[in-house]
Amino acid sequence: MKNTLVMAQLNPVTGDIEYNKNKAIECIKKANEINADLVVFPELFLLGYPMGDILGRYPNIVNQIYSALDEIKEYVTNTSVLIGYPEKNKNKFGKPFYNSVAYIQNKKIIKSIRKSLLPNYAEHNDYRYFEPYDIIKEDRIIEINNIKYGVIICEDGWNDFEFFERNLYHKDPISAIAPEVDVLVCPASSCTRAKKEQLKHNMMKHTAKKYGIKYVYVNQTGANDELVYDGLSRIYNEKGEIIAQAKAFEEEFYAVDIFKGGKVNPLPSGLELTLNSQKEFSLDHKPDLERTYKTITVAIKEYFSKNGFKRAVLGLSGGLDSSVCAVLLADALGSENVLGISMPSKITSKESKSDAKKLAENLNIHFKEIPIGDMYLSISEKFKNIFGEIQDDFEGRYSASYTQDNIQARSRAMILWGIANEFSSTLPVATSDKSELYMGYATINGDMSGGYAPIADVVKTKLFALARWMNENRAVKNVIPESIILKPPGAELAINPKTGKPLLAEEALMPYEFLDEVIWRIENLNQSIDNMMKSKFLYEKNNILDSKTKLEWLKKFFKRMNTALYKWYILPPAPVVDARSINKIEFKQPIISNINYEI
Amino acid sequence: MKNTLVMAQLNPVTGDIEYNKNKAIECIKKANEINADLVVFPELFLLGYPMGDILGRYPNIVNQIYSALDEIKEYVTNTSVLIGYPEKNKNKFGKPFYNSVAYIQNKKIIKSIRKSLLPNYAEHNDYRYFEPYDIIKEDRIIEINNIKYGVIICEDGWNDFEFFERNLYHKDPISAIAPEVDVLVCPASSCTRAKKEQLKHNMMKHTAKKYGIKYVYVNQTGANDELVYDGLSRIYNEKGEIIAQAKAFEEEFYAVDIFKGGKVNPLPSGLELTLNSQKEFSLDHKPDLERTYKTITVAIKEYFSKNGFKRAVLGLSGGLDSSVCAVLLADALGSENVLGISMPSKITSKESKSDAKKLAENLNIHFKEIPIGDMYLSISEKFKNIFGEIQDDFEGRYSASYTQDNIQARSRAMILWGIANEFSSTLPVATSDKSELYMGYATINGDMSGGYAPIADVVKTKLFALARWMNENRAVKNVIPESIILKPPGAELAINPKTGKPLLAEEALMPYEFLDEVIWRIENLNQSIDNMMKSKFLYEKNNILDSKTKLEWLKKFFKRMNTALYKWYILPPAPVVDARSINKIEFKQPIISNINYEI
Repeated sequence: MKNTLVMAQLNPVTGDIEYNKNKAIECIKKANEINADLVVFPELFLLGYPMGDILGRYPNIVNQIYSALDEIKEYVTNTSVLIGYPEKNKNKFGKPFYNSVAYIQNKKIIKSIRKSLLPNYAEHNDYRYFEPYDIIKEDRIIEINNIKYGVIICEDGWNDFEFFERNLYHKDPISAIAPEVDVLVCPASSCTRAKKEQLKHNMMKHTAKKYGIKYVYVNQTGANDELVYDGLSRIYNEKGEIIAQAKAFEEEFYAVDIFKGGKVNPLPSGLELTLNSQKEFSLDHKPDLERTYKTITVAIKEYFSKNGFKRAVLGLSGGLDSSVCAVLLADALGSENVLGISMPSKITSKESKSDAKKLAENLNIHFKEIPIGDMYLSISEKFKNIFGEIQDDFEGRYSASYTQDNIQARSRAMILWGIANEFSSTLPVATSDKSELYMGYATINGDMSGGYAPIADVVKTKLFALARWMNENRAVKNVIPESIILKPPGAELAINPKTGKPLLAEEALMPYEFLDEVIWRIENLNQSIDNMMKSKFLYEKNNILDSKTKLEWLKKFFKRMNTALYKWYILPPAPVVDARSINKIEFKQPIISNINYEI
Repeated sequence: MKNTLVMAQLNPVTGDIEYNKNKAIECIKKANEINADLVVFPELFLLGYPMGDILGRYPNIVNQIYSALDEIKEYVTNTSVLIGYPEKNKNKFGKPFYNSVAYIQNKKIIKSIRKSLLPNYAEHNDYRYFEPYDIIKEDRIIEINNIKYGVIICEDGWNDFEFFERNLYHKDPISAIAPEVDVLVCPASSCTRAKKEQLKHNMMKHTAKKYGIKYVYVNQTGANDELVYDGLSRIYNEKGEIIAQAKAFEEEFYAVDIFKGGKVNPLPSGLELTLNSQKEFSLDHKPDLERTYKTITVAIKEYFSKNGFKRAVLGLSGGLDSSVCAVLLADALGSENVLGISMPSKITSKESKSDAKKLAENLNIHFKEIPIGDMYLSISEKFKNIFGEIQDDFEGRYSASYTQDNIQARSRAMILWGIANEFSSTLPVATSDKSELYMGYATINGDMSGGYAPIADVVKTKLFALARWMNENRAVKNVIPESIILKPPGAELAINPKTGKPLLAEEALMPYEFLDEVIWRIENLNQSIDNMMKSKFLYEKNNILDSKTKLEWLKKFFKRMNTALYKWYILPPAPVVDARSINKIEFKQPIISNINYEI
């Protein structure tokens, strides 16, 4: 049909050219059948994204891609195609590839459109392999059935001189082509993060209005290791209104008359509330909970299936972190594919044990209780002897240490990895959360060890909110027992001598409400201790906090954070959820980095 | 003295502005005393390099650096100074910083010279934070006592159009300034790698001769996490001859008359042999052994001291890897700061036990033997019960698995981490080598776990050579017992049913000579299975190898490598030694990356 454009919102597998090619061909055939004017695939679709160093390390991938293009073009008959691929740079100068989009019509590759703005911040690393191409207006314009399309590729659209206060690049590809075309088309690979949808929407709306132009944005879905793609491909009209929007977090062949528009699928619920920027820390995590839930479940599903795993095994402590992980895993993999193990020690309370069991029953996952008291005792006894012998000629034994705590955490991880070694297609899961990882409150080879770490980018106060949200919004309500949500978090690895009860996390650390705001201020405002001392925390509005204690907490935070850098270095892959994360695909701080965090 | 230039070959601490500033001031004072014309510090000296994301995350570092510069300039009297720092980009466009060198004279910052070519390959990531600056000839030229100096910064010097077959950048800063100056000055932060010295030397020699110009190159020393800097600052004369060269791998205040030259300190021994490129795989690792030894010992020393650790604990199996690690640790930290633990199981041979002990005695390190038979038995027994229970409703139990092997490796790691938790300033060390990491022949939370992994970038055949080299070249000869070097490697975790003896690594994998050449071909030639089938391996010159077996080995290699990607992801920091490594600071391959390695 005339004026029909297909947004091919698909999920590629990085490096699997055969798979991506077949997916493309299938889609082109469908587009031919409906006589669509144009099918648009996401950025670098034939290769998959992100790609790491595979282009440099395995140069034959590029030959495979060129063969795939040759095969694909034979299917391009009734429709025209824009499909992303890495194009060889045949010049003597520059990086070896361009980040390109092939324009295919009537079985011919008419030309390649090359990306000019190459992002190299956060998770992006385009400049590592791609040469930025000059902005040449004519190259970027194509005409189909009397409609002129101007093609930009992802970051090419992120440099409007009015919209941004500061621009990363000196040139704006859109301003060069928009005045001459009817429709902007933007193939993209843009991963989901907190606050990003809001920024992206405002920016594209601004552009569509500014130039009085249609704006077609085609994003990928699926996930690769840490990055999750939310789809939500869309079309803006000349007034900056969304007239068509594909589903969130799902593959879709979305055919639409670009003049009439089509179904506007909703954003994850609550997300529209974030369309005004959050300038202060808030405990109201609600606007981001469905997006967070979907991001993590898609991440898990993709990581497991694309790597050939089916099943997860995790420790169920009866606490919040492992309970939330269990629900996310059950929803991502199917409850029949999740095995929860309660591994109580002497310190574990009766409630924790019964809560863990109840959660497993509610979720209908496999469940076993394996007490570790015997293992802990025998290792502890052995250690006593070892340390006694060693201290004779190796000085500096601590009078108090975390050794006993860690024996418990490491025994549990040993059991989980043992099960993963013994049963096919099974991956152990690390349940550490972001608040605790910032404080290094996680045991190496213990609770922070696993094949994947689903909630490593979610702070504790948000996890509480997510638990409540899942209890309310899943088909089966209230799977997480209320007692788990009400219980103050604690690792149950040691007794607090002051209370005689298991040490609570907030006793060992500081109140989570305060802790999470420190993290928020670091990640969103880049604040130092000095800045934070001058700022009023939400916690201070509801509690009395003298400045001496505040300073102590802040110093403790940064001191612990600095020694946690090693733990971040060996953190398993974890989905990026927040606007900024400690995930190593994004945040790079040398372990050796003696920074003065105070000033 | 007239014409005297100081190469300030120093070791900064990343992020520790106070420390770096004081180091700079001390050096400037000494230069004032001898009335040097000019002191040249390494690239980004005030910040330290590499820097990760600390500029973006902690913006106050930049203010600290500006204050430091203000303080430093007051000391600049008799001498002039070139000192590297991140300069704010105050324009509305571009990345937030320039990679700059401040030119200070008579207590005034005269100007800043900005880097134009920003590397973004291998371990480099300059473009993440720095804006490339146009090549403006006048900006880069300074004149002192009638000598004209042209300043380039590290990568600025790596783009000669004749020297390289292919150029990463379109412009060459040297060609713009060399014709107008007497001396090129290049502050750099250039880490050591196999084959790099050869390339660097040939390139600088070419440049000095081409323009008939002196070339001063000032590199840093020390290390940061994975990267080690070999110093070797130097001056080439107009004929391309080295007329002065600072020490390798050591700090030095090297004052020299640039016309007369000075002491030419030697390269690490053997390295001059590599000044012709190695085009084929060779088992003669000799030319690179002293450099390898120095790289790793400096890396260990720096990682421990800069992070506040003093002592290392490691498992001594009586095998090659742990023995080599023990020697390197003793030399880096002092033998009194190394604790070797022999942890024999039922499978461990008598020879392994006595070899471990003998090595420790020879090295004069602390030593304990802690049998793990009891721990293994009780955990193994517990696992039997656990698995029995689980298999009732969790299908897919393997008939043969690595579970038993891994219990041993994990028990050992648990002991080492326990000791590190219990004794102050002590870090456990991972002893995995590069050949075995490529094959995933390492246990998660077992032998691959530790605070640092000294030999993770050294292949097995080179480790044998390194062991022999250390036996010959250390002050105390032959600390590694000959029996350790002669013994075929094996993890001693399982019995080979065919031989009834502990399974050897080459039985589980393939001959190391072949394996190491596969790695060499991937890293140096980017070859696929198909390429390798068409190539003749060194192994094939000395052994009969039918193509069916060769293909099997190659397929096995890539299959195992692909499943090892997760292990690389959680590998502890390890010094980069080879021309290419699997270290995550350099090599980035998504764990999800279904590549066809065959074609």
